[in-house]
Amino acid sequence: MTALADLSPADLAARYAQAHGAYEAFRARGLKLDMTRGKPAPEQLDLASGMLALPGNGDHTTASGEDARNYGGLQGLAEARALFGPALLGAPPEQVVVAENASLAVMHDCIVWAMLKGVPGSERPWSKEAAPAFLCPVPGYDRHFALCEEFGIRMLPVPMTPEGPDMEVVEALVADPAVKGMWCVPKYSNPSGEIYSDETVRRLAAMKAGAPDFRLFWDNAYAVHHLTPEHHAIPDILDVCKQAGNPDRAFVFASTSKITLAGAGLAFFAGSPENVRWYLARAGKRTIGPDKLNQLRHVRFLRDPAGLTAHMERQRELLAPKFSAVTEALERHLTGTDVIWSRPEGGYFVSVDAGVGTAERIVALAKGAGIGLTPAGATFPNGRDPRDAALRLAPSYPSLSEVREAAEGIALCILLAAIESERAVRAAPQQ
Amino acid sequence: MTALADLSPADLAARYAQAHGAYEAFRARGLKLDMTRGKPAPEQLDLASGMLALPGNGDHTTASGEDARNYGGLQGLAEARALFGPALLGAPPEQVVVAENASLAVMHDCIVWAMLKGVPGSERPWSKEAAPAFLCPVPGYDRHFALCEEFGIRMLPVPMTPEGPDMEVVEALVADPAVKGMWCVPKYSNPSGEIYSDETVRRLAAMKAGAPDFRLFWDNAYAVHHLTPEHHAIPDILDVCKQAGNPDRAFVFASTSKITLAGAGLAFFAGSPENVRWYLARAGKRTIGPDKLNQLRHVRFLRDPAGLTAHMERQRELLAPKFSAVTEALERHLTGTDVIWSRPEGGYFVSVDAGVGTAERIVALAKGAGIGLTPAGATFPNGRDPRDAALRLAPSYPSLSEVREAAEGIALCILLAAIESERAVRAAPQQ
Repeated sequence: MTALADLSPADLAARYAQAHGAYEAFRARGLKLDMTRGKPAPEQLDLASGMLALPGNGDHTTASGEDARNYGGLQGLAEARALFGPALLGAPPEQVVVAENASLAVMHDCIVWAMLKGVPGSERPWSKEAAPAFLCPVPGYDRHFALCEEFGIRMLPVPMTPEGPDMEVVEALVADPAVKGMWCVPKYSNPSGEIYSDETVRRLAAMKAGAPDFRLFWDNAYAVHHLTPEHHAIPDILDVCKQAGNPDRAFVFASTSKITLAGAGLAFFAGSPENVRWYLARAGKRTIGPDKLNQLRHVRFLRDPAGLTAHMERQRELLAPKFSAVTEALERHLTGTDVIWSRPEGGYFVSVDAGVGTAERIVALAKGAGIGLTPAGATFPNGRDPRDAALRLAPSYPSLSEVREAAEGIALCILLAAIESERAVRAAPQQ
Repeated sequence: MTALADLSPADLAARYAQAHGAYEAFRARGLKLDMTRGKPAPEQLDLASGMLALPGNGDHTTASGEDARNYGGLQGLAEARALFGPALLGAPPEQVVVAENASLAVMHDCIVWAMLKGVPGSERPWSKEAAPAFLCPVPGYDRHFALCEEFGIRMLPVPMTPEGPDMEVVEALVADPAVKGMWCVPKYSNPSGEIYSDETVRRLAAMKAGAPDFRLFWDNAYAVHHLTPEHHAIPDILDVCKQAGNPDRAFVFASTSKITLAGAGLAFFAGSPENVRWYLARAGKRTIGPDKLNQLRHVRFLRDPAGLTAHMERQRELLAPKFSAVTEALERHLTGTDVIWSRPEGGYFVSVDAGVGTAERIVALAKGAGIGLTPAGATFPNGRDPRDAALRLAPSYPSLSEVREAAEGIALCILLAAIESERAVRAAPQQ
């Protein structure tokens, strides 16, 4: 198919008329579809329906003989740490803490404690620094950026490459002692799907940081969330940091929110022994202990690493067709345009680079056609995409047939916006 | 019985020999008893054993038709707020937030957010104030004080009276704009059992605070935790504050930790509409939502206010005899000494004023006899009781027969320390 820029004026007009007609026809169907957030679908939650009656009456004794119903056990059950530590965090059980139901909350707590108390290696609390900053690979996770915004942490964007964040940029920026942290979603990155290369991980662990208390906020959100039969692996960051002589560099986060039950999963922290001591000392002021019955519930349900793997295979069977539906629709309508999109092998999003200055227009067009999209710019610090080009599509929640319809509609919106943009370029007075 | 101070030297020597002998005989039994913490006993947790299989397979739809398994619902289920708001927090459901499993965590979060962001009415974050301070009725809850210590908040002790904190002292101290908060356990106060009088509550709500953003941290931990058939009521602090023209003055906290399951209960925040908006805005950065299945589990189990009342009556049947065993042993051995102790009508502790300079000695004597007691001073800011007189006894966890034995031993330790103290006074050179 001829690229839009190479079309004759008449052909461009014809394509516009065609795209506009297709959009109007879609719009006339009056659909109501939501592709805004990476929520599991009800069928995914049904996979864990057995958990709703667990641990079961009378089952409340942990492997070590404790009563899981009572207070205490700040670090979490040993059997839960053994099941999830290696699989989700690349950490031995003794370097894992089990928290409540949200890994975001664990990250939040690390930030507020760092701000008010400092972390191991800090010369002072981060809130006493002139202007603490985080490196933010973009596009990234909007809720990570919202935490920085909430607590007045400056965000320094770093471009993503197919190997992960652009390490030339990272290494230059991290020399500044004001840079205290960096957000990383190292596998099936949110939203663009990259898998950090071994080399990227090694450089992140070994790079010279200006701040003695610099931390990688390593959000391994999609550790076992594969969309293909290939189970991609990344190096265990705690090991690599230790080998690089920076044992305390990484705070590692994960959860079972997208494994078992989105609102009733388990969240985890992992780190070096020093970081774990620090975390537990802080957490011990905040709570007498976590919900150990929910930990027991998870262990009873998933049982062992093989059970976890089998469960995630069932998740993949539900999710993979939805992602295929999205990329197929994009291919069908957008081949030959300058639009590019991710073909993720895991995670929860398809990321689209729709061309400069079109993302907000596409979100508006989609809204007009009854499709809710994540606001343009949401995946950038402060919600501002300087190119206004990035879209995040979240196909997990709607049914497969709804995703097919929504993807069709979204592709039509992107196409229409691309043609509008080309027409606008041609109509603009020559500079 | 003759007071120790009035005994002749020979009679005092005889009483010492008798008390020492009794202590040594107790010690020789080689018991191992723990009266350190206010943990529910296994039989209390058994009352909620039905919850371990709830909500049950297939039951995940809330009253409003939401899927309790998925993300979202930041404020908590309407049915959980309706069940617990009025009963535990004296607040209408719309002014209640359901959090995770620990009210201490809710208090922690309010403090860190106040420190980093400020609360409604703040001129600046509390961490930017010269030296923020909290009023701390003493003796009080050690974990409250530990939060202040953790975040560098000065603690100003306020003596307790039978009506609650000494309001003359409170009203004088709170005029200082550095005083940002005050810890209150208004009903069956921890550890001394006082019930704040209506007048105390009214004065706390109406007093002129120097700080425009002063907050009562109103920890209604024992709202329904009665030890007698009389269900004492206190005024609803949110109402009283509103009537006094200080609608935003109180942050209210509660939990079901000592109602259902100590480690797997629900915690709550309540406040004015403005405070609730503030809390939800902060909490919405920290999490996508709470564990709504645990909320559903609670609602399915307790059903309604009558179910809650009936459940707490069963708790009382288990707890009241243990408290009686403690006070009976104290009466048997300590009548006629200067030792005084609480006769709580609710809550989790018996509080003892054992006489100046004896508390540490008593804890050591008890340890020697195989009885773990809360460290002397634990109920005071920074763990220091200036009189070294206060003991906190926690009879909930051990079995009734163990509590009987422990109470006997503790009474013997207190008596021995009191006699030792009287002997020391007489032996000291006259000043």
